[in-house]
Amino acid sequence: MSSATAASPLARLALRFRQVRRQTLDLCKPLTPEDMMVQSCPEASPAKWHLAHTAWFFESFILREFAPGYQPFHPDFHWLFNSYYRSFAAFPEKRLRASFSRPGLDAILHYRAHVDAAIDRLMDSEPPAEALARIELGVHHEEQHQELLLTDILNAFHANPLRPAYQPTQSASTHAAVKLMRFLPFPGGLVACGHTGSGFCFDNELPRHKVWLEPFTLASRLVTNGEYAEFIADGGYRRSELWLSAGWDAVEQSGWRSPLYWTEHDGHWTLFTLRGALPLEQAANAPVAHISYFEADAYARWAGHRLPTEFEWEIASAGAPIRGNLLGADLDACTLAPQPSAVPHPTESAAQQIFGDCWEWTASAYLGYPGFQPLPGSLGEYNGKFMSGQMVLRGGSCVTPAAHIRATYRNFFAPETRWQFSGIRLAEM
Amino acid sequence: MSSATAASPLARLALRFRQVRRQTLDLCKPLTPEDMMVQSCPEASPAKWHLAHTAWFFESFILREFAPGYQPFHPDFHWLFNSYYRSFAAFPEKRLRASFSRPGLDAILHYRAHVDAAIDRLMDSEPPAEALARIELGVHHEEQHQELLLTDILNAFHANPLRPAYQPTQSASTHAAVKLMRFLPFPGGLVACGHTGSGFCFDNELPRHKVWLEPFTLASRLVTNGEYAEFIADGGYRRSELWLSAGWDAVEQSGWRSPLYWTEHDGHWTLFTLRGALPLEQAANAPVAHISYFEADAYARWAGHRLPTEFEWEIASAGAPIRGNLLGADLDACTLAPQPSAVPHPTESAAQQIFGDCWEWTASAYLGYPGFQPLPGSLGEYNGKFMSGQMVLRGGSCVTPAAHIRATYRNFFAPETRWQFSGIRLAEM
Amino acid sequence: MSSATAASPLARLALRFRQVRRQTLDLCKPLTPEDMMVQSCPEASPAKWHLAHTAWFFESFILREFAPGYQPFHPDFHWLFNSYYRSFAAFPEKRLRASFSRPGLDAILHYRAHVDAAIDRLMDSEPPAEALARIELGVHHEEQHQELLLTDILNAFHANPLRPAYQPTQSASTHAAVKLMRFLPFPGGLVACGHTGSGFCFDNELPRHKVWLEPFTLASRLVTNGEYAEFIADGGYRRSELWLSAGWDAVEQSGWRSPLYWTEHDGHWTLFTLRGALPLEQAANAPVAHISYFEADAYARWAGHRLPTEFEWEIASAGAPIRGNLLGADLDACTLAPQPSAVPHPTESAAQQIFGDCWEWTASAYLGYPGFQPLPGSLGEYNGKFMSGQMVLRGGSCVTPAAHIRATYRNFFAPETRWQFSGIRLAEM
Amino acid sequence: MSSATAASPLARLALRFRQVRRQTLDLCKPLTPEDMMVQSCPEASPAKWHLAHTAWFFESFILREFAPGYQPFHPDFHWLFNSYYRSFAAFPEKRLRASFSRPGLDAILHYRAHVDAAIDRLMDSEPPAEALARIELGVHHEEQHQELLLTDILNAFHANPLRPAYQPTQSASTHAAVKLMRFLPFPGGLVACGHTGSGFCFDNELPRHKVWLEPFTLASRLVTNGEYAEFIADGGYRRSELWLSAGWDAVEQSGWRSPLYWTEHDGHWTLFTLRGALPLEQAANAPVAHISYFEADAYARWAGHRLPTEFEWEIASAGAPIRGNLLGADLDACTLAPQPSAVPHPTESAAQQIFGDCWEWTASAYLGYPGFQPLPGSLGEYNGKFMSGQMVLRGGSCVTPAAHIRATYRNFFAPETRWQFSGIRLAEM
Repeated sequence: MSSATAASPLARLALRFRQVRRQTLDLCKPLTPEDMMVQSCPEASPAKWHLAHTAWFFESFILREFAPGYQPFHPDFHWLFNSYYRSFAAFPEKRLRASFSRPGLDAILHYRAHVDAAIDRLMDSEPPAEALARIELGVHHEEQHQELLLTDILNAFHANPLRPAYQPTQSASTHAAVKLMRFLPFPGGLVACGHTGSGFCFDNELPRHKVWLEPFTLASRLVTNGEYAEFIADGGYRRSELWLSAGWDAVEQSGWRSPLYWTEHDGHWTLFTLRGALPLEQAANAPVAHISYFEADAYARWAGHRLPTEFEWEIASAGAPIRGNLLGADLDACTLAPQPSAVPHPTESAAQQIFGDCWEWTASAYLGYPGFQPLPGSLGEYNGKFMSGQMVLRGGSCVTPAAHIRATYRNFFAPETRWQFSGIRLAEM
Repeated sequence: MSSATAASPLARLALRFRQVRRQTLDLCKPLTPEDMMVQSCPEASPAKWHLAHTAWFFESFILREFAPGYQPFHPDFHWLFNSYYRSFAAFPEKRLRASFSRPGLDAILHYRAHVDAAIDRLMDSEPPAEALARIELGVHHEEQHQELLLTDILNAFHANPLRPAYQPTQSASTHAAVKLMRFLPFPGGLVACGHTGSGFCFDNELPRHKVWLEPFTLASRLVTNGEYAEFIADGGYRRSELWLSAGWDAVEQSGWRSPLYWTEHDGHWTLFTLRGALPLEQAANAPVAHISYFEADAYARWAGHRLPTEFEWEIASAGAPIRGNLLGADLDACTLAPQPSAVPHPTESAAQQIFGDCWEWTASAYLGYPGFQPLPGSLGEYNGKFMSGQMVLRGGSCVTPAAHIRATYRNFFAPETRWQFSGIRLAEM
Repeated sequence: MSSATAASPLARLALRFRQVRRQTLDLCKPLTPEDMMVQSCPEASPAKWHLAHTAWFFESFILREFAPGYQPFHPDFHWLFNSYYRSFAAFPEKRLRASFSRPGLDAILHYRAHVDAAIDRLMDSEPPAEALARIELGVHHEEQHQELLLTDILNAFHANPLRPAYQPTQSASTHAAVKLMRFLPFPGGLVACGHTGSGFCFDNELPRHKVWLEPFTLASRLVTNGEYAEFIADGGYRRSELWLSAGWDAVEQSGWRSPLYWTEHDGHWTLFTLRGALPLEQAANAPVAHISYFEADAYARWAGHRLPTEFEWEIASAGAPIRGNLLGADLDACTLAPQPSAVPHPTESAAQQIFGDCWEWTASAYLGYPGFQPLPGSLGEYNGKFMSGQMVLRGGSCVTPAAHIRATYRNFFAPETRWQFSGIRLAEM
Repeated sequence: MSSATAASPLARLALRFRQVRRQTLDLCKPLTPEDMMVQSCPEASPAKWHLAHTAWFFESFILREFAPGYQPFHPDFHWLFNSYYRSFAAFPEKRLRASFSRPGLDAILHYRAHVDAAIDRLMDSEPPAEALARIELGVHHEEQHQELLLTDILNAFHANPLRPAYQPTQSASTHAAVKLMRFLPFPGGLVACGHTGSGFCFDNELPRHKVWLEPFTLASRLVTNGEYAEFIADGGYRRSELWLSAGWDAVEQSGWRSPLYWTEHDGHWTLFTLRGALPLEQAANAPVAHISYFEADAYARWAGHRLPTEFEWEIASAGAPIRGNLLGADLDACTLAPQPSAVPHPTESAAQQIFGDCWEWTASAYLGYPGFQPLPGSLGEYNGKFMSGQMVLRGGSCVTPAAHIRATYRNFFAPETRWQFSGIRLAEM
């Protein structure tokens, strides 16, 4: 991207648009049209729907409004591929997405090409700034759905009793030695949180505002599968005193006794990943993933620690370079699974695995920042209407596109959610 | 089939096996691999699963037992495509069938070819009579799934908000004039019911046994959509006094106000069929279909009549030739929808639409006949274990293979079932 | 009642009305007003509601229609204590009956006295025959609720963790030796079933009609707790092949592993009864009760037998004297629990326990007899609208009033029902 | 209490113990034993259970631990009346409390007297400070249940179709003129929140900690029924754009179209209160109550405002005198319903209705303060394990005992909760 950096903002946006759009298709290469029909849990959508909905976003929020004479690809797609924008148009129930055998994959690919060409033309036509801002939003929206597509496919392949692998070829060994978990101190004080600067952010990262923090610590790395297995072995799922009341209800009602995608057979645990199943031992030093907030919270209590708040996390990560085990442009080079943290250089004092590997549950409920204003119009439904009953996660995961994450990024899920690549970073009490 | 009738029983079975197996594939021609993934209601299965499960039946009940040296196509298919035979092997939850993107359609087609070749070889090798009896059972089993495949696809395409048609080309007009509904008298007495003769039947059609019937009548034809629309217009779905208590609960909880697949828009009703949507007026004289037992019962009460028992139906139909609006070998010639009854010849005294068009709800609960014995072994689960909470339907529908139906055939569904081609024949009080 | 038998029919009805009404109050003597508030399962109602609803029946169907100038006790009771007569008046949801703290018990007792006095006056005034027929119906209705009141109180006291006893004093020992179960032969043939004669019956016992029966046998006594415990010990609740499909679903979903009111502790079973808890050993020879149709059916299959049809039962019981372990006028003399059958006299050839002890599940679905006509008007909802999804039980139980039962009496419950005193009589295959 | 203020802390505690215990009984005077059995929604408990559980608290946490030789009143009560302390003893499912007809009310009153006498003796015996601290906690616990008792009885009487009144006598008129809602400014800054001083507080009010607040405003009074009726009339319950996504789901699934306890008839609204039903017009100027967080949030959005955070609320209320429309010692003088705010004196600048009338939903999720430590042992389950999925409410209501509330008090309920006396105070955007 070095040549692009010298280019105009518009040229850079055009390039990024094309790269991101192509990347979505690349992610589907290992999938058959049949794979792309599966919707295996209420949180998930079929891969084909992700392909269509991301095109719909550009068509509905940009082309219909800013591209004079734009001919929609299909008159029904405007409502068919709407996800949840109530103020915009009616939309089908989410569970019906599994019935969208028609339009077929070919039609959806044509839809994407149709939209891509129109966006290209629009960008060539000196569009208003708002159109460009929305294209940028659409690119980030597409990246969110890239992550969801992989998250959902993992669930789909896990639901299939044959347990096929998305990418059977093995990534680099995960046998790296686990290193000591250290707690890195931070002074706290009256700090500023929320996005700043001219780069892109979502509405829920604003406004930047002051927060008072007491001195705190943050673990140097994520909790590993091996450490989590000790929690299980110590009766973690049988000891109600370790759990929030709603968490214990979930344990009892859902029969949880391990992270999602763990299977026990004769005392041996197997993990299911996008690269297929593997014995726990092989991933013992990799971060535990696919746990709920309730499990993260119970683990922290068992370990004598706590989860950090989203503000502690943000302050601790504010200066960190955005690199890590994330989703890169070259799919073959991606791990597609959380990886053990590197053994740090002796002089290294920074936290590891800040970005990538696993989303990190924080102890903060997902609420609007003081003075929060959702985007105007239908786009205001993007983030704001979900500010109830959810917890904030930070840092991105191994399937988050590298260009998509930043220190102020707020992801959010209900506390019982487990299909995400979600894990644990501890703070000291 | 005239040449076949002179052939040996084995040759006739071999021919029928091949024809039925081919017909299943023919039914899938209008479908894409994506269509064949959809499972849109708990009663339904994906079309691809029907393809696989019918092969599984031959492999599991015949080849594994009677074909020396038979190599199963895939070691996991034995449990993967088991439907509900608990005594046989574990099986996946029914709802998971929607996640079977792998094996892909190509693999399933190979599976079918593999099984077909092995059955052919087995039939060439002077197999024991039990093997042949099971092949015949497998053929009938396959025909049941042909009907289910079409029934399920109708539901799948109705779930798709775009409402695609399975066979868009229109069949012969359905504008035939409705004829008077007459009630044909039958003397009753001490009659024999249940299968007799050397032809095939299921275990639940046996033993043939005596039943006492009072004199009764049976309507000369099925109730039409137009007649059913009058019931609706007269407040049929709002008058609790017309309904069984459990039926009224279903009306209130499910919000029924018409048959399944009827949609009202500005006072006009549209029906959705395998040939797409059409205005009610065009199908006013065709039999009403896709109604529950509760609706059939309420309609009968509203009309001042009743539903016949399965024994009345069987006696009245005992001598009728097996012809009607059924699923034939030539798919293009099939109506795929219930059709108006022909205007009878003045001298005609027989009931019409006895076979085909719609399964006819009877007033009989599905129970074992006196002395009923299920088949031995796992095949005993085929019919017997469902003898609770279901009502008997008789006569087949427009998607029942013509060779599959007979007067003693007992179909059965829970009284709230609506996804079947199920309709109403009245009897006088 | 010897003096009454010489009296006029009207005098006999008046006497019986008073006796039955008083008996209902007698049944409540062991209960506190607080006990009479409990509604511990969806099938049950609070005892106080039974007191009020039985008065409502007389007020609504008789006094309002036939008693000139009758002043209803309270303007709201007409809808408040309606149970399920939709054509009559709106009624509260059943579950709300637990909130009827007001009217208090005193008010309900006044309501009953008010209604009793008005019925007495009506009977003194040469009322029309229809009024008398309805009073007789009301008496039988009250007896049904006497049984329900005891059935519901058993459930209520079982729900209470302290497990109080309705009648703590012990009845006669239940240690009687179990006798051999014999199978008594019956010739079958073309028989007549349904009520005959001038005595009272419900509409669902009519019309008397012909039924063809093959020769059959019936067990000489009910299945005992001890025999049922063998079924449990033999894995009865873990062997799916013994169960109807819907029955196995119930086992898995509800976690059944014994009859309702059985509790296991360290390998020992305890039964909870209206006289409190007792060890299984003490009741080993008493009939098993509080089992569903599914359990009765599975037991019969395990034992190599079957359940009789309701017609077999009726023919076998047609001449039997109506005596047995039923609810008598003297509550202190009542057993309130199923009792072991007496050792028969060597010359005794009749079945025992035909009436009383336990309702006996039959293999017959609850449907209308040929030509069935419900009572006209709202009373038509009494029985007819429940003819779907239920199985017939025969013979009455230890809490059925002795004057209430007869050979043609058809009780009916959904196959999963367990709160009734329901048990098993076998027939040979 | 003026004489008590001069007394020793122990004497004051002893007096307060006796007063609070007596007050609980006084609250039950309008109730019959039958009323005290009703449990009409999952959140509620029967009044009799509240009487028993509050005695259980003193017995279990104080007498069993600190009173040498204490004889428990009944060996089973220790687990029977446990509410939710998992680490302490097993406890019955909450829904079973409706089956506790035994022990009867008399027994529970004896239980209370037995416990009262033992606590009195303990306080006379120079108990350790921890015992006294727990007695104080028990007094506050009892006050919480006084409020719940009234809240639950309102629900119980609303469930009763006859809608009886707890206190039929009318309170002072609610016709007071509504005054202008002003927004009072607060400077914000780095403030301290959480309890301070030597008085009693719950563990969740600690530790006192610094919070940064931007300048904010707070409405001078609560939103009234009349104002809320305008929101309804303006389509508030039909406009999805006003609602959080989870709130809109609740509207659709629960069919909300007004606050709980409002009923519409021919366009006129009626409110049901502890004093019976009254027309909306009579309470138009009283604060709206019995609304969920979702409704409070939607109303605020509709009005162009927002809800305050719990910290804004606490800072604004920090100096306010603790008086208002609360539950006083003299039940006859209590309003038992939210009341219109007084017209303020022209020079009055403070907010009104800070304490009492309605709990005020805040925009803050219920989480632990930085450094939060639950009480040790089983008492740690009192508050801490509920810190997930709930929102904070502040200020107390008309049924909160006056001595129980303070500015730092944190109440908490799930956002869909409506059976509480919960209302709205706005803040400017």
